[in-house]
Amino acid sequence: MDSITPFQFSLVYNAFSFTFATMAATTAFLWLCRSQVAPAYRTAVTISGLVTAIAAYHYLRIFESWNESYSLKDGIIAGTGFAFNDAYRYVDWLLTVPLLLIELVLVMRLSPEETSSKTVRLGSAAALMIVLGYPGEIATDIPTRALWGTLSSIPFVYIVWELFRGLGESIEQQPAVARGLVRKARLLTFASWGFYPIVYMAPYAGISGATATTVIQLGYTIADIVAKAGLGVLIYMISVRKSQVEAGGVALHTH
Amino acid sequence: MDSITPFQFSLVYNAFSFTFATMAATTAFLWLCRSQVAPAYRTAVTISGLVTAIAAYHYLRIFESWNESYSLKDGIIAGTGFAFNDAYRYVDWLLTVPLLLIELVLVMRLSPEETSSKTVRLGSAAALMIVLGYPGEIATDIPTRALWGTLSSIPFVYIVWELFRGLGESIEQQPAVARGLVRKARLLTFASWGFYPIVYMAPYAGISGATATTVIQLGYTIADIVAKAGLGVLIYMISVRKSQVEAGGVALHTH
Repeated sequence: MDSITPFQFSLVYNAFSFTFATMAATTAFLWLCRSQVAPAYRTAVTISGLVTAIAAYHYLRIFESWNESYSLKDGIIAGTGFAFNDAYRYVDWLLTVPLLLIELVLVMRLSPEETSSKTVRLGSAAALMIVLGYPGEIATDIPTRALWGTLSSIPFVYIVWELFRGLGESIEQQPAVARGLVRKARLLTFASWGFYPIVYMAPYAGISGATATTVIQLGYTIADIVAKAGLGVLIYMISVRKSQVEAGGVALHTH
Repeated sequence: MDSITPFQFSLVYNAFSFTFATMAATTAFLWLCRSQVAPAYRTAVTISGLVTAIAAYHYLRIFESWNESYSLKDGIIAGTGFAFNDAYRYVDWLLTVPLLLIELVLVMRLSPEETSSKTVRLGSAAALMIVLGYPGEIATDIPTRALWGTLSSIPFVYIVWELFRGLGESIEQQPAVARGLVRKARLLTFASWGFYPIVYMAPYAGISGATATTVIQLGYTIADIVAKAGLGVLIYMISVRKSQVEAGGVALHTH
């Protein structure tokens, strides 16, 4: 197992700080601008900001945990003996991943019955996916990691099926100006989520030790920024366009 | 290489603290006053506040990093062995420089198509400029610094061209009361940005060691205050004037 270099330590350190700033800034943007969309879309925009707020909190914690687990002095890096708490990611996902799917359903403005059935089904599947993935993440051997990874991908496949089959028809009924953006939001969710299993499997590829840690941390960080801050901004843009259409083509700005 | 003096240490220390206060105060001002401009300009004012909020966070971090890297006791200054993390600046710029250009485009209120094409092009060029500048900043030799500095100036020249040629016509179409201010905002962006390459090149001028560090830190700090807090206040003033004109010459103050 290779030991971490000062460059790798600093790269992850700065990536965590960057992500905290990005998530906090996105939260401020979404919560300040929610008054600029029609009331029907404010819950979607509020929840998008909740997701980035929860992520900001966890990135602050993960940044501190990273900083406590290494000591970089006089250009020499050494482990302090305090473990890096990677569980913050799973705790974060357990809260944010169901909410991400809920914000996507809410911005589509389906019938109340459909909204509640979709949010319950997608939200539960997302929570199950995270819970099943965790035992594999902390496993030290590849077979255990593979087993839980496979179990976790069952709810993942169900979510993808729901997004593309179950929500497909509803997407076609979105107003023309917003349809392309809603499709992009779905694709962004699918593509950024597809990134997590790849990172999860980094140890399979023979990448181990400090390089694996660096790749895994940077990979999850990039995926989180796209899936949370990126999706949040898209949800806001969809809400603005749909608000304008529903106000009869006139820009609607209530508050 | 000269070592830092207690005076130089305190000067940079106080400059960082001053800048944190300035950025945080500007954020509070912009977000509190956003309701006093017409809805069409609120996004520009919100984003101006985001830029100063992100900068405030990074100045708090950079202040603490500076403070941890030196120990000043009984009038004697000594390095603690903990490196000063200058990367916070680049992490900050990666987020804020694209946003600065976006706030400038948004306050001009162009057509939706023009707004999205300009924000994407200017935002991407700005991010590229920052990414290309970083390897030069951390380089220890002048030729490497010069190489990356030159590469970084390619997107910089493109941005300047876009601001003066691409946006020139749009500026002429701004309402008369706001036109002068929009030109000033563009000039301030150009002039404050022109300051960064000068600071970047401080090591060329034979300024090295602690004097170089002090000059670089103070230089970037002054440039950041002008480019972020200064531009934010200008964007707010432009928004207020344009709101008044569009409300038929009457001052518009909702809620």
